[in-house]
Amino acid sequence: MMAELLIRPFSPEDNDAHWRILAPVIAAGETNALPRDMARQDALAYWTAPGRQVFVAEADGVVVGTSYLAANQLGGGAHVANAGYVTAADARGRGVARALCAHSLAQARACGFRAMQFNFVVSTNEVAVRLWQDMGFAIVGRVPRAFAHPALGDVDVLVMYQAL
Amino acid sequence: MMAELLIRPFSPEDNDAHWRILAPVIAAGETNALPRDMARQDALAYWTAPGRQVFVAEADGVVVGTSYLAANQLGGGAHVANAGYVTAADARGRGVARALCAHSLAQARACGFRAMQFNFVVSTNEVAVRLWQDMGFAIVGRVPRAFAHPALGDVDVLVMYQAL
Repeated sequence: MMAELLIRPFSPEDNDAHWRILAPVIAAGETNALPRDMARQDALAYWTAPGRQVFVAEADGVVVGTSYLAANQLGGGAHVANAGYVTAADARGRGVARALCAHSLAQARACGFRAMQFNFVVSTNEVAVRLWQDMGFAIVGRVPRAFAHPALGDVDVLVMYQAL
Repeated sequence: MMAELLIRPFSPEDNDAHWRILAPVIAAGETNALPRDMARQDALAYWTAPGRQVFVAEADGVVVGTSYLAANQLGGGAHVANAGYVTAADARGRGVARALCAHSLAQARACGFRAMQFNFVVSTNEVAVRLWQDMGFAIVGRVPRAFAHPALGDVDVLVMYQAL
């Protein structure tokens, strides 16, 4: 964990930093179900879509990660939160995702959500799977071969969940 | 199965029939994660959202059911289809959903999808769960208490899947 990590709401001034973080992850296409050639404007619009609370993690004034928090469904599913996280490539291994996830869980509780669900955790993203388990999430579903990994072919996708 | 059932693409002229079918299901709030007070315009826009192929089932010239078919995810998840179905309240028990599902599966195969996934099958909707199982879907996930049922409280939600 970086001592200096500050998590604060996203503002449009963070767009450049957001794209710097999102672009390599989207282009790699190994962990997210987004088009690998997704344009900057589309990616930023997707990540900060209406209804999402977006936060950034800053270390020494530099944005090193981003998260969103939203209801996973409408109506009878609106008590379950969904969230997503991306860490800057040059800031990995420093606890950014863990801090963003802890912040999301607290924020979700504060907003009255009664659970959090991840719909699409790529099973080969083992660092993430272990981290979410460590943060209290259980694997409640496994969809066979639901992700076309650019190097590994079709791999399973996990649904993960925890009550809040 | 109704002998006369015709499945054809939706056209805007079907909007009134669509709303007649969708409104009571949305208002009941027992099987779909949509706001129970969802307005007609919002419901129609949701059901026929961009990127969805929408079909209606007609019996003797009357629309008795509707389905949509779409990619469940973008990017590396775009080879998996998603679909949804609603049968008119006065046409239940006549094989409409079964026929719409069979049509969706064939259409998904024709479009090159390699699997179909349902993200949100309310576990207490036993008729639907049995029908999807009968149509070849397996339960691959169970999200605890992820649906606030208006009569039964928080009940589990199933993720269902089949390869195509």
